[in-house]
Amino acid sequence: MSSDNVGSADNQQATREEVSNEYFVGFTDGEGCFYVGFGRRKDLPLKWQIITEFHVSQNPGGKNVLDEFRKRLECGYLKPNHANNPKDKSWILIVKNRNDLMNKVIPFFKKHPLQTSKRQDFKIFVDVLSIIKNEEHLNKDGLRKVVDLVFSNKRVTNKRYSKEEILS
Amino acid sequence: MSSDNVGSADNQQATREEVSNEYFVGFTDGEGCFYVGFGRRKDLPLKWQIITEFHVSQNPGGKNVLDEFRKRLECGYLKPNHANNPKDKSWILIVKNRNDLMNKVIPFFKKHPLQTSKRQDFKIFVDVLSIIKNEEHLNKDGLRKVVDLVFSNKRVTNKRYSKEEILS
Repeated sequence: MSSDNVGSADNQQATREEVSNEYFVGFTDGEGCFYVGFGRRKDLPLKWQIITEFHVSQNPGGKNVLDEFRKRLECGYLKPNHANNPKDKSWILIVKNRNDLMNKVIPFFKKHPLQTSKRQDFKIFVDVLSIIKNEEHLNKDGLRKVVDLVFSNKRVTNKRYSKEEILS
Repeated sequence: MSSDNVGSADNQQATREEVSNEYFVGFTDGEGCFYVGFGRRKDLPLKWQIITEFHVSQNPGGKNVLDEFRKRLECGYLKPNHANNPKDKSWILIVKNRNDLMNKVIPFFKKHPLQTSKRQDFKIFVDVLSIIKNEEHLNKDGLRKVVDLVFSNKRVTNKRYSKEEILS
């Protein structure tokens, strides 16, 4: 078989260069998530915890890219995405630490903007973390601000708790 | 709410620049597919047609990126991904034309290599198109080469027809 014109991908490994920041942005627009959620916490004054997390998942063949991305962001960790499901071998890169989210993840995506409507999720993520940084979320008005922001996102329709439930 | 330190994503739209090639590669590693399949065709001498297709799908919020990618590749078209399912509003960019695949899509990804194990799919895609270009696939040995290539891909486990079925 001649592949002179169509060419071969044999030499890709050899010419592989450092992964660019823009690559990671495209990857995140495809597979990433800027998550803001709520969890019941009886021990907290307002009974609700705000969960903030950035994650990107990938099939096993993309684990190397998740690891490169972790190094680039200088934070987060990798784990099997669904450890309890032996059929699902995918991996996930997770950043939960709020200092890392504020000082590493957010600056990265401000410098290298998302290109899909996922930028709306990112904007809400940024605004929520700003409220948390200022400790406004510890009073009811601040919590309401966060809830309003999260529920203003038309992209996310399947929410665990209703707005009324969290604010009651 | 002050967002001096965490910052705001308000100004992203204004500073949005041209989407880089590497972005599209990351996007493809996340959401793209270099598909080689087989279809029964009684009118063909070997009774089998080889289907080659590059596609990338996205939620409605990523349609703009698919359109940018189509312009960058200078080929393909967009259509609703599952037009018969009213709940699925996703879009898909498809390139089926073999001249476009050989002269536009393949050179793009040879210049800007994939970073996940999807590069294995791409390598097989390139090799299959080379066989087709040389019209080797019109005889049984060539078809066998294509079948062997496709079934050598450990990443793709759920195939419609068995190897024996196609080569019988």
